[in-house]
Amino acid sequence: MVKTEYVQVSTKGNSDVVNITDPVAEAVAGSGLRAGVATLFNVGSTAGITTTEYEPGLANTDLAAAFERIAPEAGAYEHEKTWHDDNGHSHVRATLLGPSLSVPFTEGRLVLGTWQQIILVDFDTRARQRTVVCQLIGE
Amino acid sequence: MVKTEYVQVSTKGNSDVVNITDPVAEAVAGSGLRAGVATLFNVGSTAGITTTEYEPGLANTDLAAAFERIAPEAGAYEHEKTWHDDNGHSHVRATLLGPSLSVPFTEGRLVLGTWQQIILVDFDTRARQRTVVCQLIGE
Amino acid sequence: MVKTEYVQVSTKGNSDVVNITDPVAEAVAGSGLRAGVATLFNVGSTAGITTTEYEPGLANTDLAAAFERIAPEAGAYEHEKTWHDDNGHSHVRATLLGPSLSVPFTEGRLVLGTWQQIILVDFDTRARQRTVVCQLIGE
Repeated sequence: MVKTEYVQVSTKGNSDVVNITDPVAEAVAGSGLRAGVATLFNVGSTAGITTTEYEPGLANTDLAAAFERIAPEAGAYEHEKTWHDDNGHSHVRATLLGPSLSVPFTEGRLVLGTWQQIILVDFDTRARQRTVVCQLIGE
Repeated sequence: MVKTEYVQVSTKGNSDVVNITDPVAEAVAGSGLRAGVATLFNVGSTAGITTTEYEPGLANTDLAAAFERIAPEAGAYEHEKTWHDDNGHSHVRATLLGPSLSVPFTEGRLVLGTWQQIILVDFDTRARQRTVVCQLIGE
Repeated sequence: MVKTEYVQVSTKGNSDVVNITDPVAEAVAGSGLRAGVATLFNVGSTAGITTTEYEPGLANTDLAAAFERIAPEAGAYEHEKTWHDDNGHSHVRATLLGPSLSVPFTEGRLVLGTWQQIILVDFDTRARQRTVVCQLIGE
């Protein structure tokens, strides 16, 4: 059985990390499915999805520092010459992090660790409204 | 229901980015499935799959620059000493990007953003023929 | 049909790379399912799952060098100030690599390449016991 849910996320952009664990857990609980996989997918090419321990030091500072090493905000990007915009680094970071995450659930609950939360990281250079498709397959 | 399709991809290697959205979308459309998840998997250890805005500046230059920061082509790799080859950086980049991507579909269509394409990045140091398994699960 | 298996993994920590291909393949073979997807998920926020060619030079040296570039062990991490611990780099590396991997199987076998193994990379700073959830969906 397949159930499709949509999670709407408001972000501040600029590598903002948003904890989306609760709405995903609610989608699973409300689906009536007991065991299966939740496939989460960010629609768009400047944000990604993964898990982390969601605490301010890690989420607001440490992750941003690593993304800055991989694709510096002040770097030169061909993408910005193409579109005359400023989010070349956003695209590169999102491409490397990836738009999707698959989380199993059993007995109607996600199999996350105690200090493991599902996050959306928005790399765009402005506040955005994001849609995360939550595709539930199970029984 | 499970349907297995295979997408064959010709690449130039050396971090060549190939847009595989159309053959994946055709596999979904031709499967008869309406809602589910397409799990894409690159067979082999020197290429990866993700999404990006597929335009030349980003695909041909900006992504390559980030991969060069993570695993420089001219770096020293133990892997190359083991096999007397030249693709240590290819393996490291592919391991970090990852071989799989899960994309939901609804009403027979992938839930991609307008400027979001599915890409295979081939990190090997020569032209290759790649097989991407497209495993469709849905109803 | 959904089948849930658990793979227990002993690691040495400190970016230890463990080949978990055999127990995952056994879970698939023992499930009675012929075609589907194995969704692997590491429970916890300091390890990740991907594929690589599992040979000592790459697994023990080259991958660690790349992770050191992304998140240096000796760097300054806000996370470590929060908890007075030493594994800020572990969290950052695990967040970027990601906790999940989806591998299709056909005829009861994973569609891996000959030199492509499923690995768990444990970034924590001590030996750990890990649980990988292996959620099999198929027919």
